[in-house]
Amino acid sequence: MSDTISTAAMLAIGDELLSGRTKDKNIGHLADLLTVAGIDLKEVRIVSDEEDAIVEALNALRARYTYVFTSGGIGPTHDDITADAVSRAFGVPCLHDAAAMKLLADMYAGRGLDFTEARQRMARMPQGASHIPNPVSTAPGFIIGNVHVMAGVPQVFQAMMAHVIATLPAGRRVLSRSIACPFGEGDIGTPLAAIQKAHPDTSIGSYPHFDGLRFSTELIVRARDEAAVNAAAAAIEAMIEAIRAQKDAASGLDLGTGEVA
Amino acid sequence: MSDTISTAAMLAIGDELLSGRTKDKNIGHLADLLTVAGIDLKEVRIVSDEEDAIVEALNALRARYTYVFTSGGIGPTHDDITADAVSRAFGVPCLHDAAAMKLLADMYAGRGLDFTEARQRMARMPQGASHIPNPVSTAPGFIIGNVHVMAGVPQVFQAMMAHVIATLPAGRRVLSRSIACPFGEGDIGTPLAAIQKAHPDTSIGSYPHFDGLRFSTELIVRARDEAAVNAAAAAIEAMIEAIRAQKDAASGLDLGTGEVA
Repeated sequence: MSDTISTAAMLAIGDELLSGRTKDKNIGHLADLLTVAGIDLKEVRIVSDEEDAIVEALNALRARYTYVFTSGGIGPTHDDITADAVSRAFGVPCLHDAAAMKLLADMYAGRGLDFTEARQRMARMPQGASHIPNPVSTAPGFIIGNVHVMAGVPQVFQAMMAHVIATLPAGRRVLSRSIACPFGEGDIGTPLAAIQKAHPDTSIGSYPHFDGLRFSTELIVRARDEAAVNAAAAAIEAMIEAIRAQKDAASGLDLGTGEVA
Repeated sequence: MSDTISTAAMLAIGDELLSGRTKDKNIGHLADLLTVAGIDLKEVRIVSDEEDAIVEALNALRARYTYVFTSGGIGPTHDDITADAVSRAFGVPCLHDAAAMKLLADMYAGRGLDFTEARQRMARMPQGASHIPNPVSTAPGFIIGNVHVMAGVPQVFQAMMAHVIATLPAGRRVLSRSIACPFGEGDIGTPLAAIQKAHPDTSIGSYPHFDGLRFSTELIVRARDEAAVNAAAAAIEAMIEAIRAQKDAASGLDLGTGEVA
């Protein structure tokens, strides 16, 4: 486990995400995996299948974060241009990789299918890239520099990420504690801000939920240090009890904590 | 209806989206709405609750696209900093808006609740901004320049967007035709690329689906001109029939089109 904090960005590529035809499932999956691995996902971008847009976003992200993960655009059709765009971003040629050609040729031969020109497109990658294995449909993803290029089909993206995540040095995981709060943000905002100020080594998030009638809140304390999480969580629980007592008093009730649902 | 093509970007704000705690639902909703309205969503970014990150992304996006839509960070707690960040991006003070203060004061008075300092935070917006009504929970979103700032809670985001979308001039809608293709991208890649080349006034997308055993494809033709969509779709249907006939011949079968499931 490393004490250095690694950061990450995701670049999801595809017109279908921007037209609404496909609702992305890869961002949330990656976010979950990275959180468990102790790697901080700092930014996500979604761009269309346009080479300039991909190159610009990729160069911005790869310069800024420890890792970049991309999804989409590595299939065999004309609109799959991610390998070309990544090659251009790194200033290297995009070539049919010999090892990928063999993997795919063998797979299609075994299935009695032609290894068409379109299928051969899936062996193209930037010169010098290494493979990300694809146990679902063979055609590999690839890694160049700090950029990990994966398919957009969720089953394939997930299989590729399962491999990739195991190769990355795990960071010191961010611990989190979730506290259900029956009160809306309007009730807790001011005392919660004071608690955040008193616990600067934690990050306290407030996530409102609306059930159609009223707001409640989920409060999440996050920190890499367990004692810090515990101290902030205790302060939040005390705050909730204080608000509850105040509300009971205001409504003329004194049911005692045990009788309040 | 305008013949000018308007573009848009979305900026989703919130640590919870990057930690995986919350799976975003607003991007897909916005994408659907804009597609129907004939406005091209070109880019989406997700950033954390950090003022610098919000300001930088907002300034990049608002300079480049006709409209920017944001979600998240306009609640009453300390981690809701979108109003401050948007104000800084526009170089104007972030103030308690008088009309928003009155709306909220009246609403809380009607519910017998204190109009706390935290709740008053929800009336803060950049000087000169106009309101986006919030029929769900009163606290308004706001518009400044080409930037539309909305809540992250999906019910509220959707209610605000329902108002906003009706105020935007509808563009000439992009028409689309979806064609189910029983073959994988490896079979169709080369002829499909030729069809795209022959129909440059359309955008043909190929979306693979993997059912756990084999890939099929959904092909989508998009264009603002109906005749162009029809011509490309006809070419694609002919391509599918040609591949089917070829496969039937290769497997020694000649079932006739009517008997092929």
